[in-house]
Amino acid sequence: MNRKILILTEGLSNPNSAKTACSVIRYRRDEVVGVLDTTVPPQPAQALLEVGGDLPVVNSLDALPEANVLLIGVAPTGGGLPAHMRALVLAACARGMDVESGLHDFLNDDAEFVAAAKTSGTTLRDLRANDERDVAQRKNISDDCLRIHTVGHDCSLGKMVVSIELARGLSAAGVDAKFIATGQTGMLVEGDGCPIDAVIADFISGAVEKQVLTHQHHRVLVIEGQGSITHPCYSAVTLGLLHGCLPHALIYCYEMGRRMVKGVDHIELPNMESQRDLYLAMANAAHPSQFIGVAINSRNVDADAYQNEKARIEAEWNLPATDVFREGAEPLVTAARGMLED
Amino acid sequence: MNRKILILTEGLSNPNSAKTACSVIRYRRDEVVGVLDTTVPPQPAQALLEVGGDLPVVNSLDALPEANVLLIGVAPTGGGLPAHMRALVLAACARGMDVESGLHDFLNDDAEFVAAAKTSGTTLRDLRANDERDVAQRKNISDDCLRIHTVGHDCSLGKMVVSIELARGLSAAGVDAKFIATGQTGMLVEGDGCPIDAVIADFISGAVEKQVLTHQHHRVLVIEGQGSITHPCYSAVTLGLLHGCLPHALIYCYEMGRRMVKGVDHIELPNMESQRDLYLAMANAAHPSQFIGVAINSRNVDADAYQNEKARIEAEWNLPATDVFREGAEPLVTAARGMLED
Repeated sequence: MNRKILILTEGLSNPNSAKTACSVIRYRRDEVVGVLDTTVPPQPAQALLEVGGDLPVVNSLDALPEANVLLIGVAPTGGGLPAHMRALVLAACARGMDVESGLHDFLNDDAEFVAAAKTSGTTLRDLRANDERDVAQRKNISDDCLRIHTVGHDCSLGKMVVSIELARGLSAAGVDAKFIATGQTGMLVEGDGCPIDAVIADFISGAVEKQVLTHQHHRVLVIEGQGSITHPCYSAVTLGLLHGCLPHALIYCYEMGRRMVKGVDHIELPNMESQRDLYLAMANAAHPSQFIGVAINSRNVDADAYQNEKARIEAEWNLPATDVFREGAEPLVTAARGMLED
Repeated sequence: MNRKILILTEGLSNPNSAKTACSVIRYRRDEVVGVLDTTVPPQPAQALLEVGGDLPVVNSLDALPEANVLLIGVAPTGGGLPAHMRALVLAACARGMDVESGLHDFLNDDAEFVAAAKTSGTTLRDLRANDERDVAQRKNISDDCLRIHTVGHDCSLGKMVVSIELARGLSAAGVDAKFIATGQTGMLVEGDGCPIDAVIADFISGAVEKQVLTHQHHRVLVIEGQGSITHPCYSAVTLGLLHGCLPHALIYCYEMGRRMVKGVDHIELPNMESQRDLYLAMANAAHPSQFIGVAINSRNVDADAYQNEKARIEAEWNLPATDVFREGAEPLVTAARGMLED
């Protein structure tokens, strides 16, 4: 049966809170039939999520009876299911819809959801569920495969999109490239990957290494970054990824105008140059690595401000830069192809 | 009922493989009645484990009928129960003994063990089991509490012992100090703490921060380090700890003569000075921090070699140094007290 996904963003239908929804709409538009938010009037998704065009946002499960999958479209800090979404999950189960979630709190650990799914014969899928239990080995890693890793100033500023756009740009240029998803949203887009932030701490790098070993027959892997190496909550995830995927090349991602840490907003973000140097030092402690480009998220500024910033960063960092949303990934694709020729 | 612990080290009765056994014997000697290893003749623990004096190593459960707890005394890479230990765990259950384990593979997830424990009415305790689900907040952290953190060149070189000896030395000098255990063995010794390497990745720093918030009414916390910031498997755990406990002061721990990474022995350890600088840079990205001392593990060299090394490192690093096993923690205690006076 074809997947007909209804994305639940109840009360959180904006680009920041509904990251998962926005990315699935962007990259899996053919599978998505609508967005469910009973707190707002029916309208096109574009108006609320800045993506999706005329994809309908509906305020009732009845509005799209063909939907057969309810996808939880938000990823709140801490990863719990917002309490006001419970009734809608139960109603979806009762209609015979499968329910998919990328939250840390698993649907399959919730007795009420499990009972509801059993009654209606539907399936609960937890994208973050994993049984990773292997430590990294640092063996059999091929140097015929170029490993590119996106790292960033903070979390939630577009590392996944940059990674996908770079991998697709390389593929379009005839290079055998694959996106390695390391989070639940990327996994929904790519169809494989590993939810690294939900792996038990001792096995983070081992889980990433396994992704590399599985896919290194491709010429290029673009490994999605998570968090930041200085993030108060998630720096462990970031370093486990960095030391698990041993990148040859790094792309630095940041958002113009962001000053405070996302989710810990009394803490200032570090100076970008000092943070870049920390990434370089920590990466090179494990494997020779260099920055090859910069991805600017300029969603909060106008075109002139973006062009000025791009010119500044390209000059000061001596690296190509682009906002992949505004201008595409071509400068990063070119930089990656340059690594292949070296 | 008083705990009468029999420590299972089956086939692995040496100081490297039986780390947990050695530390529990060192610090909980009054609760330990013996060591069980059916692969060796009965003998004093000192001969095999270099600790424990005349504590008996026995080769049968029948030899110490008063034992009421079987403790798994090994911590293999990956954290699974060695297959040859299963029969002894089941036999202990059948005798009515509780079983305690710090392994990643939980006794309580093993249907056969659960059934055996149920039949005999005994308890299976998994020290690494946790339900940490809180991200770090970076709020309400007191600067009236001095936070000292032990970090190291590699894993398994004595960070826990250094932490305990420093906390005890401070207490003996009249300073209200507490050891914060971050691993299962430290938790057995201290009676509380958190098994950080078994926490889900997103919540590592949050779990450490919770330990700090809970105990910061003490004047000094000595937070046990794990792994190393460059360890191929465990660097994520190390950084999550560092950014979760925000140390004012660091103690660098290393073992003389160690050249290759423990458990990944085709990978060379980094230069110590460069690694020290990585620790400093990563710590100071979150909170002002400095090294105040060096802990040398000199178990593999003679007294002269140790004294020469100590003189060298003190001169080159301009820090006090000691092997706490050979000479006690006094130089580190003095350095910590110096921080209190600043």
